Amino acid sequence: MSKVTVVGSIAFDAVETHAGKRDRLLGGSAVHFSLSSSFFADTHVVGPVGDDFGEAEFDVLHARGVNTDDIERVDGGKTFFWAGRYERDVNVRHTLQTDLNVFEAFEPKLSEASSSADVLFLANIQPDLQIAVREQCTDARFTAMDSMNLWIDIARDDLVRAIGLVDCVILNDGEVRQLTDEPNLVRAAQQVLDMGPRVVVAKQGEFGAAMFTREGFFALPAYPTPDVVDPTGAGDSFAGGFVGYVAAHADELDDATLRRAMAYGTALASFNVEAFGSERVQTVTPEEISGRVAELEHITRFEDVPIPLRA
Amino acid sequence: MSKVTVVGSIAFDAVETHAGKRDRLLGGSAVHFSLSSSFFADTHVVGPVGDDFGEAEFDVLHARGVNTDDIERVDGGKTFFWAGRYERDVNVRHTLQTDLNVFEAFEPKLSEASSSADVLFLANIQPDLQIAVREQCTDARFTAMDSMNLWIDIARDDLVRAIGLVDCVILNDGEVRQLTDEPNLVRAAQQVLDMGPRVVVAKQGEFGAAMFTREGFFALPAYPTPDVVDPTGAGDSFAGGFVGYVAAHADELDDATLRRAMAYGTALASFNVEAFGSERVQTVTPEEISGRVAELEHITRFEDVPIPLRA
Repeated sequence: MSKVTVVGSIAFDAVETHAGKRDRLLGGSAVHFSLSSSFFADTHVVGPVGDDFGEAEFDVLHARGVNTDDIERVDGGKTFFWAGRYERDVNVRHTLQTDLNVFEAFEPKLSEASSSADVLFLANIQPDLQIAVREQCTDARFTAMDSMNLWIDIARDDLVRAIGLVDCVILNDGEVRQLTDEPNLVRAAQQVLDMGPRVVVAKQGEFGAAMFTREGFFALPAYPTPDVVDPTGAGDSFAGGFVGYVAAHADELDDATLRRAMAYGTALASFNVEAFGSERVQTVTPEEISGRVAELEHITRFEDVPIPLRA
Repeated sequence: MSKVTVVGSIAFDAVETHAGKRDRLLGGSAVHFSLSSSFFADTHVVGPVGDDFGEAEFDVLHARGVNTDDIERVDGGKTFFWAGRYERDVNVRHTLQTDLNVFEAFEPKLSEASSSADVLFLANIQPDLQIAVREQCTDARFTAMDSMNLWIDIARDDLVRAIGLVDCVILNDGEVRQLTDEPNLVRAAQQVLDMGPRVVVAKQGEFGAAMFTREGFFALPAYPTPDVVDPTGAGDSFAGGFVGYVAAHADELDDATLRRAMAYGTALASFNVEAFGSERVQTVTPEEISGRVAELEHITRFEDVPIPLRA
């Protein structure tokens, strides 16, 4: 069984959407990622929490078999807290509050069990910390990372250096454009490939995701769900499905495998948005995931039948 | 050979993009549509022009075999003129000037040759004119229409009535949402289906297009071109490819045919954006179109190989 290590935030989220309001959801990039990844591989999560992170929260991760030995509990500290409100159009989000708390001084410490992972995912944290973690995981056969606009703004050099150390970058399409100052996504992604990675995935929210490699291009629309309750964490659930699938097939990492990884990432993201926080991914079954991947194949496939065209 | 009639604008466009500037491009929805449609079916174009529309412009249409008998030349009038500027990010467009000219008083007059078409496309014109044309084309086996935010704002009732009279609606995704006041595209498209048509296509610009029918859903990303010169007319070229393909297969209008129609529409739209105005579609070859459809099939296909997931 492959082993995946994810380093990132563990959080409590307060979220308000057209579908209702929740004051304290288990969230954070490492949580959303690891719940998704747990369907495919042994998953170790590395991140800090405060005293307020209790048995109920650990139970959620343990129920999916996630290894929490490297969750660092900071005595007297409080867990990262984020509050946000989505408009009726859930593509429009307003951040109401961000309390970094214990995440502010986080310095990832990986046990031997975590640093020996086959596959590593560096969720959205400071690029210099991503580099430090990447350098500890010398055995990793596949490494991937996320980032955000903040680091493009204030730590671009470190970010580019981190990108040069991983196999795969998973960003929002707007971040790919911002990082390269190139509005055309195809050209922008090519520039990110030139920084070193062999795979660039541009997440496009409700429109799906596109994958760029040196060999070619693949794109998959999002699953067309009519019931978007809360999009928080969808990108991390996507990454968990994508990277988890890759981890389960790390010895056969060809184009066909990466395309299937995109489908599993898309399926997990679609479940993520159908309930608050990580609630839906906590309860989704392997059969439901497989069923949705099969549906994705169906709703994207056409058979080209060449016809005579008029010259 | 199937016959397609398109009713819409014929225009001169002045366009400025990152790639350069042109003062007088042959454009308009009916022109972009008919050039694309001409690869699939006999295409009749109905629309008004002024004295300034000359042999050179007719020659462009005739070179693709488009029937121009119902282009109405208004003595002393001027052809519809539009000027616009695209930012470096071509998704951001600024309209600089719109002179309706002869288009303002346009009342479509269809000859017997045009009104007897098998397939009808009502490009973006006033909804009451769309209704009048629709009612003249009693033989049409397949009818489709476009519209725009202006008509949703000032003539919504007529627009809904027009939608109730056609088989297929082709709109931008933002227009589908605006028309129904529903931010979720899946729900919004369902509401448009409830108005009467059997097919709703939501164009999503650089992200591709999605198709909703009573039976299901299909989505196709845009062709990933690094060379977007001028997006003007891409939506109409898409419609021309989609409706043209349907016209060539009007007796076998099943889901597989509609999916292929989406691919041909997507291919034509991708050529449209690679040069100013309709210049690229004027010169594209049948082989290039077929090749791009084959590429689209390749870049969107994945094979689902069920794997054991961890419960």
